[in-house]
Parts: sequence; structure tokens; C-alpha cells
Amino acid sequence: MTTPLRLGIAGLGTVGVGIVRIVQKHGALLATRAGRPVEIVAVSARSKTKDRGVDLSQYAWEDDPVTLAKRDDIDVFIEVMGGHEGPAKHATEAAIAAGKDIVSANKALLAIHGQALAVAAEDAGRVIRFEAAVAGGIPVVKSLTEGLAGNEITRVMGVMNGSCNYILTRMEDAGLSYEAVFDEANQLGFLEADPELDVGGIDAGHKLALLSSIAFGTQVDFDGVELEGIGSVTIEDIHQAADMGYKIKLLGVAQMTGRGLEQRMSPCLVPDTSPLGQLQGGTNMVVLEGDAVSQIVLRGPGAGEGPTASAIMADVMDIARGMRVSTFGQPAKTLRKARPARAAVPAPYYLRMQLLDKPGALAKVAHALGEAGISIDRMRQYGHQDTSAPVLIVTHKTTRTALEEALVDFKDTGVVSGDPVAIRIEAV
Amino acid sequence: MTTPLRLGIAGLGTVGVGIVRIVQKHGALLATRAGRPVEIVAVSARSKTKDRGVDLSQYAWEDDPVTLAKRDDIDVFIEVMGGHEGPAKHATEAAIAAGKDIVSANKALLAIHGQALAVAAEDAGRVIRFEAAVAGGIPVVKSLTEGLAGNEITRVMGVMNGSCNYILTRMEDAGLSYEAVFDEANQLGFLEADPELDVGGIDAGHKLALLSSIAFGTQVDFDGVELEGIGSVTIEDIHQAADMGYKIKLLGVAQMTGRGLEQRMSPCLVPDTSPLGQLQGGTNMVVLEGDAVSQIVLRGPGAGEGPTASAIMADVMDIARGMRVSTFGQPAKTLRKARPARAAVPAPYYLRMQLLDKPGALAKVAHALGEAGISIDRMRQYGHQDTSAPVLIVTHKTTRTALEEALVDFKDTGVVSGDPVAIRIEAV
Repeated sequence: MTTPLRLGIAGLGTVGVGIVRIVQKHGALLATRAGRPVEIVAVSARSKTKDRGVDLSQYAWEDDPVTLAKRDDIDVFIEVMGGHEGPAKHATEAAIAAGKDIVSANKALLAIHGQALAVAAEDAGRVIRFEAAVAGGIPVVKSLTEGLAGNEITRVMGVMNGSCNYILTRMEDAGLSYEAVFDEANQLGFLEADPELDVGGIDAGHKLALLSSIAFGTQVDFDGVELEGIGSVTIEDIHQAADMGYKIKLLGVAQMTGRGLEQRMSPCLVPDTSPLGQLQGGTNMVVLEGDAVSQIVLRGPGAGEGPTASAIMADVMDIARGMRVSTFGQPAKTLRKARPARAAVPAPYYLRMQLLDKPGALAKVAHALGEAGISIDRMRQYGHQDTSAPVLIVTHKTTRTALEEALVDFKDTGVVSGDPVAIRIEAV
Repeated sequence: MTTPLRLGIAGLGTVGVGIVRIVQKHGALLATRAGRPVEIVAVSARSKTKDRGVDLSQYAWEDDPVTLAKRDDIDVFIEVMGGHEGPAKHATEAAIAAGKDIVSANKALLAIHGQALAVAAEDAGRVIRFEAAVAGGIPVVKSLTEGLAGNEITRVMGVMNGSCNYILTRMEDAGLSYEAVFDEANQLGFLEADPELDVGGIDAGHKLALLSSIAFGTQVDFDGVELEGIGSVTIEDIHQAADMGYKIKLLGVAQMTGRGLEQRMSPCLVPDTSPLGQLQGGTNMVVLEGDAVSQIVLRGPGAGEGPTASAIMADVMDIARGMRVSTFGQPAKTLRKARPARAAVPAPYYLRMQLLDKPGALAKVAHALGEAGISIDRMRQYGHQDTSAPVLIVTHKTTRTALEEALVDFKDTGVVSGDPVAIRIEAV
């Protein structure tokens, strides 16, 4: 097989340019590894005249990604534009209809339309690959789909939004409030144009939904992901959690339970000595658990020109080598519809509240927990500040239903000031 | 493609039994993922009557693995016997000659005969896969060969022998001598029948040589691996290194240098806050560095029934899915002969010596280092014990040639008692 593999790249932002750089720099290496040349034939972006620091003169130019997608002289359509509707969707659909293989970095598009796109591609005998859509340069889609193909997957976890992890670790290191670090990160250009995609957990939720589909053989179900962003995490909680031996992470967790598929993307406490707890700054980490392998942990850059382009090229090289696997690890038509299970898996919780300086206050709180069937693992009361004292409680495993009941009961005790904070502790 | 993929398993030790368990337990899952059934047809081992806790009655039995390898009714020959000569080699060669694909966990066989076997397999249009041979359940061969196929690989590092890492971390945790922990590990069955394979770094060296070949496009060259085991690591060095912020690991490092391919498997100091430094017990970790991705870190179980069988099944599933890649990532005939470069990459070093209680002793040692062109980053002298005092020195980057010169000069100073210890500090 010495026919060149011909690429069309839609989108020439950071990632698109990174792909061009790799193909230009490593032409010989790629050809040796793939057994055939890998060539860029045509590109598409908004501005033809913008200087991107790479020579694009030998490639055909298309203003419209849909036209690019339909070109007779490309084999693979690389979509690195972004956006889950509009041009990205239309161009991807057009490319599938025109019989192209798809390599995409578009987590939003795939998390929302992945099932329909995968069915269309498989009906046409084409593949959709999306290593770059999840955890940047880490080959996590490949590890899960292929590397653990002999396992029943029991849990998938991950810190998959570098900006959020940057914010949380920076808050702790500098002792700054969420608001202060958010502004800082925004000014440094670390956040999406709509920051809620990052700090609201939406971007990471897209990624979790994609991994869940592969892991559990279910149709990708982003709507089934319980989302909670990091906006409510306070520097106090970070400090107190550290005191108890924990770090707070925006952690995605997906598990198949007796009641259905549980997918959560929310702030969680993890032990500070665990690989997840030790993860600093913008780095990503994914933990994959299977019945045979037990646990593997993958760590690496979650974004950036080189890492994301590296992931795109992994998919391109698979296609060049003739290695084809179903989008979600099994034929899309065999994927079951996910039955979302919310709060199915019990866990210990970290509780923080302000207790009023009244006789028997602590007893009342402990009683409310006991009434809800929740037992206490550890408790700390700190000195009074004015009229109230901070109290920390780490519970034993409990359901969230029981916990929410207890939180309501706290109000009735009349000794808790304001709203208590409750954060799940994930066993890692 | 609904024809079953038919497996023949040679070797029914822990790993062989693990494979049987997965195929028996997950038949439906494997078939859905692969798009075809995966079946065991025949097995082979030394004793037919031994109770292995799994039902083998539905499989054909062969006393001789060579006969198994030649059976007309198998597609894939799975070699989990071990040994780099004798039956494992003969059976693998016979399987290739009979047109079978090979899945092997045999690091020694491949590190020594991998090039010849790969050429033979590729001439016959067959693949050899060996995910299970390197770092157990971690999909590191796949990550390197496929996941980073768009990268020029700049460095491969790893802790790839769980027994050695267990010994080193146990020494530190319990404050025990190497000899004491070695005996303990041996009694617990953590070491190979010939423990030198583990503690001498040979087993880990085999794994490093396999990764080097993929990373740098060179013929696997185990003889080019500089080997140094952990037998000379003392509890004093572990304690002193910890004092300076380091851990001692049996670390494999492979790099392409201007002078050729450097492959080392030796005790090294790594920062205690790095992922490698934080690795405890029998877990393995591999660090892959490429020009686009920068760095990814993979962590997981390096041995055991489930993890190793998981890796074997990853290779089997690739073959079942029709995903075929060259043994070492590019056609074996295109691999260049490695030119071994020893001690090519400069590094800082940790030095420990006993300094006699004589005037000007420290100055003489510092002078000897200066004469060799080595500058000192940090130094600590501890209180005198009898007639000598322990001195620790962390040097700036130096070549090993310069360092060895300085170590010789130390003797001439007449102030150093016994042999100084020198351990490389690897930047991770």
C-alpha cells in the first residue's frame, strides 16, 4: 500500500497549524511508519490571508469547509474548527456522505451528535476517530477502546479540563479566592470564549460522555451527565480539605450501576497522596478501571498545539496503516441506549458548616445525621469566630438522598448558620 | 467478518489461565467489540493433569507447543511460556512458518531474537504483538507505536520491574537493608526463579530494549543496554537521597544522541515530587516523550494474572478487528542497526563518601572535582562517626567520563575512606 493518504484540514487555528507542522516536519518518518506517504492536499479556514507562521502555498484552499469535505482528492477529513452546530456539523456530515474517513477534535459535536454521525459513517464503511477530543495528547481513547478491549470496564475517572485544574491548584498555592484566580486565568487566555464551558464542567462533561460510551457500550449521552462546575469551590474548602488529607478536583466519574449509567462531572475530594490528588496545574489525568487490568492511570497535556496535533496524527496514522475500529469500540447500531442513573453509587462526603454558639449545637447536627442513617467518620470543630464556629465532618459512605435529607434537617436544628457545603469524596 | 478468530495458547501458568478466564467470561463482549467471536481452540502446557482452576475440557490438548503452533485450526499463536531459547523460540518460529499471527508476553525472546522473528513474520505477512511483554497491563507498546506515531520520540523512561520497585520502596518504608528486603521478597514469591533477572535489571532491560526499537526505529539491541542492578543500593543512600528531595528508582532511560542510541537500566535519583518519584511498591510507570506531545506518563500494574492477560487480549482483539501494525512500528527491514552510545548524555550526579577527619579534607575533594571540570550544586557534611564523616555532594551536569576521572582522583587525595558512591540524577 504505497498510495498516499490525502488529508483535508478544516480549521487552521492552533491545532490545525500544529498538524501542518507535523506533516511538513516528519514526512519521511510518517511514511516509514505508515508504509505510505501522508500528505495534506487542501485546507480551509475563515481567513485566507492571515499569517499563521506556516507555508500553506502548496495546498488547495477552500473558503467553505463543506466544499473541502466533498473534494474528490482527499481521503480523510480533519475537523478542527469546533462548535457542535453550523459549519463543523454540516462539513462532517458532508464528508461522511462523500465517503471520507473523519478525524475530529470536536468533543461538543461528538458528545451531542456522535451516535447519529457514527451510524452514518459506519453505514458508509467509514471511520470517525476522535483521540484529540478527549484529554489532548493522552492516548486515552485508544487505550480504552483497544488497550483494554479484553476488560469489562468498571469505572472511568478523570481530570479532563486543564483550566479548571489550573484554577483549583492555583487557588491553593496562592491562597486566592475563586474569583481572583478566574480573572487571572481569563486574562492569561486559559479559558474558552464562553468560560462557562470550562468552569461549568461542560467541556469536561462532553469528554466524559464520549469515554462512557466506549467503556459501557452505550450511546453517547451528554444529557445524562450530572454537571456541577467549580464556581462554588471556596478557598476555605480547599484549605480545610487539605487539612483532612484531601485535594479538591473537578472530577469526572462514570460507572455502570444496577440502576443504570451514572455519569458525574463535579468537584470531588480525592486523597492528596493519590495520582489524581497530586495532579498540578493544567495537566490532565484519566483513570481507567477494568475487571482484568484493575487500574491504569494516564497523565499528560490536555491541550495545546503540539499535544492536540499529536493526537490527531495518531488517528491519521491508524487510518494510513489501515487500522480501523468502530467509533465507540463496537458497531454504533449495537450500542444500547443509556439509562441515566443519578446518585446511584454511595460515597463518603465532606461537610462544612458554620455552627452557632449555642448549647448542644454539635449534638443536634450529629443527631440529624444519625436520623438520616449517616454515620460520622471524622469531625473537627474549630474555634468560634464571632458567633459561630466552622465544623468539618467526614461521613462514612452514604447515599446522596440520605445526605440531602440530612442537609434539610440541619436547617430545622436552628444551630447551623447559612448553607452547609457538601462535597463527595471519591475513592481513587 | 464473522468467522471466529481461533486461538492456541502455549503455556498455562498464571497468564495463560488469565487468558482462558477472560475468553470464557467475556465471550459475548469480545464478539460484540471485535465483530466476530474469539475462541480458544487448543492449549499446551507441561502437565495435562494439573488442576488450574479453569475448565479446559473443551479445548484440544497438545503436549508439544510446536505441534500446537502448527495446528491447522488456529489463527493466532499465544506464547506465554517464557524463556528465550528452547520450546518458546522453536514454537514461535514454527507458528510463523505455519502462517499464524503471534501474540507474546516473552520479553527475553523478543529482546534477543525480535529482529529475526519480526522479519520472518513480516515476510510471511503475519504480525507479532507483544503488549504483555512490557509493563504488564499498561498499554505502552500501543501508546508508543500508535498513539505517538506522529511524534519524533525524544526519550523513553520507565520503572518496569515491579519487584525492584517493591524492594526499594520497602527498604525506605521499613528502614531495612537491601539484603533483608531481598530475602523477604524472595520468600513472598515476588522474584523470578533466578532473582538476578529482576534485581540485576535484566528483565527491565529487555523491556527497555523493546521500547527503544519502536521509539527510535532501530533494531532491538539488548546488548546495547548498560545494565546495573539494585544490589549496590544501600539504605544509607535511600535515606540521604530522601534528605536531598530524591527517591532512588531502578530507571530505564533510552535516548537517541548525536553519538548513537543510549540505553541505560540503572539506579537513578528522581525528584520525590515527580510521578516517578511518587511511585510506590510493585506498580510500573512509563514516561514517553515526543517532540509534539511533550510528555505522557502511564502507570499501572506491571505483572499478575489479570493485567498481563488484559494486555494479551488487547493484542488478540486488534488481530480480531483486523488491525495490523508492524512489530516495531515500521517494517522490520527498515529498522536501522542501533549504534550504542554509552554515557553520552550528561547529568547531575549524587555522590556519597566517607571523609577522613583530616585538615583540608573537604577542600581536597572539592579540588579533585574542580580539576575534572565538575561544579558542585549542593554539599552536606554530617557529623563525624569515629574517624570519618559522611559527605553528600550533588553536582551540576557532567559527563560520566569526567565523573569517573574525579572518582579516581579522590583515591589520590588520601582523605576518602572506601569507595565513593555515585548515582545519576535523571531529569524527569
